Amino acid sequence: MGKKKITYKDAGVDIDKGNEAVKRIKKVIKEIGLSSVEEIGHFGGFFPISIKKFKNPVLISSVDGVGTKLKVAFMVNKHDTVGQDLVNHCVNDILVHGAKPLFFMDYLAMGKLVPETVEEIVKGIAIACKENNCLLLGGETAEMPDFYREGEYDLAGFMVGIVEKNKLIDGSNIKAGDIIIGLASTGLHTNGYSLARKIIFEKLKLKPETYISELGKTVAEELLTVHKSYLHSVSDLIENGLLTGIAHITGGGITDNLIRILPKNLKAEILLDSWDVPPIFKFLVKEAHLEQEESFKTFNMGIGMILICHIKNEGRVISHLKDKKEKYWIIGEIKSGKREIIYIKKG
Amino acid sequence: MGKKKITYKDAGVDIDKGNEAVKRIKKVIKEIGLSSVEEIGHFGGFFPISIKKFKNPVLISSVDGVGTKLKVAFMVNKHDTVGQDLVNHCVNDILVHGAKPLFFMDYLAMGKLVPETVEEIVKGIAIACKENNCLLLGGETAEMPDFYREGEYDLAGFMVGIVEKNKLIDGSNIKAGDIIIGLASTGLHTNGYSLARKIIFEKLKLKPETYISELGKTVAEELLTVHKSYLHSVSDLIENGLLTGIAHITGGGITDNLIRILPKNLKAEILLDSWDVPPIFKFLVKEAHLEQEESFKTFNMGIGMILICHIKNEGRVISHLKDKKEKYWIIGEIKSGKREIIYIKKG
Repeated sequence: MGKKKITYKDAGVDIDKGNEAVKRIKKVIKEIGLSSVEEIGHFGGFFPISIKKFKNPVLISSVDGVGTKLKVAFMVNKHDTVGQDLVNHCVNDILVHGAKPLFFMDYLAMGKLVPETVEEIVKGIAIACKENNCLLLGGETAEMPDFYREGEYDLAGFMVGIVEKNKLIDGSNIKAGDIIIGLASTGLHTNGYSLARKIIFEKLKLKPETYISELGKTVAEELLTVHKSYLHSVSDLIENGLLTGIAHITGGGITDNLIRILPKNLKAEILLDSWDVPPIFKFLVKEAHLEQEESFKTFNMGIGMILICHIKNEGRVISHLKDKKEKYWIIGEIKSGKREIIYIKKG
Repeated sequence: MGKKKITYKDAGVDIDKGNEAVKRIKKVIKEIGLSSVEEIGHFGGFFPISIKKFKNPVLISSVDGVGTKLKVAFMVNKHDTVGQDLVNHCVNDILVHGAKPLFFMDYLAMGKLVPETVEEIVKGIAIACKENNCLLLGGETAEMPDFYREGEYDLAGFMVGIVEKNKLIDGSNIKAGDIIIGLASTGLHTNGYSLARKIIFEKLKLKPETYISELGKTVAEELLTVHKSYLHSVSDLIENGLLTGIAHITGGGITDNLIRILPKNLKAEILLDSWDVPPIFKFLVKEAHLEQEESFKTFNMGIGMILICHIKNEGRVISHLKDKKEKYWIIGEIKSGKREIIYIKKG
């Protein structure tokens, strides 16, 4: 047996690259101007929680991944948007319960650490944290040889927010007669990408740089459009107690997400032609020959978030959404009946 | 162009399997007897935070992965320990700052959802959450076709704990003359696996089921030994203000982790022969021909956690560790000097 020394680097783990990645993370966070990020070096992130203004605070937490939207980022080697997708997804997941973000942490795992890529990813995370008044409290960047293909990675995020107990929203105050308002999504957000990629890249054999006239943009531009955060247009509505329910339309579409907040003995009637389904969804539904039922369980179909309010508050809610320049439609109504989502064609 | 309908299942995402996995998660959590887990179905996890007993609470959070220890679990198709590794790792990371766990969330990503494997993984998570008085607040189980090999997955976790500000430990109270106490690890814990696997499976071509007489167990038994949580032996010491510093010995070994809590102008002198280095480390160091310096930056070398206390408290700390049946050694001392870790051979 030879006396060859096996080092950690031989085993695929490069500590120098790790240190360079940390340096770049610090730099980009400073550039974005994200304030009061904890000293990197602690074992955990510190968050002194101001509780004086709360009577019965409830922490609301969410964990999410970006899913196979990452594959599109790999294809075009563009990594500064997926972090925004992740943070905004988490923001929306806690916003539906009335919570505002406190802090975020990320988990990034790569086969081989590429410090430039880490920097781009963290830049996206930092941009979105800043936009959502959220502290980036820390993260784990793991080098995992033999797990991920060259140039590939997985990215997950954890967010903690807070809400005063009497402002917490879980749908239990929804009543028959309540109005269902849909807020426009910016595109696929982060769901349905396994199917979308199969249609676009396998079936149609399109390239990321292909310009699609129906969409008015390239495939990659469409597919990498950032998942929208609804924090700034919705948080005042929560603060003023104007909403009875909020649903974030993610995997499972309107069908599987709206049902999550519906109380027993209430159904949601959605008017199918009440909003403009964006071209990307029409394109995917046509190319995949999807039935309507499946399309509304796979894609958000143009609705990124659903707000529910008593009819007496409709005016105030609408006027606020207009002030915030939020694109919205009245897309249905809550009615008595078996707990389900029903799609109704007009006319 | 044919009219073949492409479904989400064709694209590699199986919603039925997802539902079965959720059913199994609920079942196993109930079996473990983990109390008051939030209703699965909410967009975020709810944690009503009792703040009455705190004056200045600080949330301490940690995010971690299991790293390439997962590969060993894949080799022997045993998935009920990696969740314990993950939770215990997070517990220790916040414990070093004086915090006790509040809640945990996991991120599990698989190429193809295997509900039985999901159940085993969550079982491990639930066992460790119960042992550490920690709520399992929720998780994300993602099916990511084309990301992970058949039977493989990645697993990350996120923990939030809490500590009263005046009990927070960050090493700033460490003084020259303080005693350094090492607590025994149970094995590699979760670090150095890329190198260990290279030595054991590539260089020596051992099988997971190979019995190694030096270790008194099989390769797989040794490598899958659960990362230990030190919560129950250390939390009272924190409560009673007996410790000035705590370091969790993870990636980077004693060298890179102990330095994190050292104030300026203090060095740590570690006595090399003051504890029993377990056979697995001697075996790996010998087979890889590792220099001492590298071995103490790659492996924990038998020390899973380091406690630092003023010499006047040594007796109380030791007596408490004995009560808790914790295996420990006095392994060194804090001295004035350039901020560094120095290893000293006795005699």
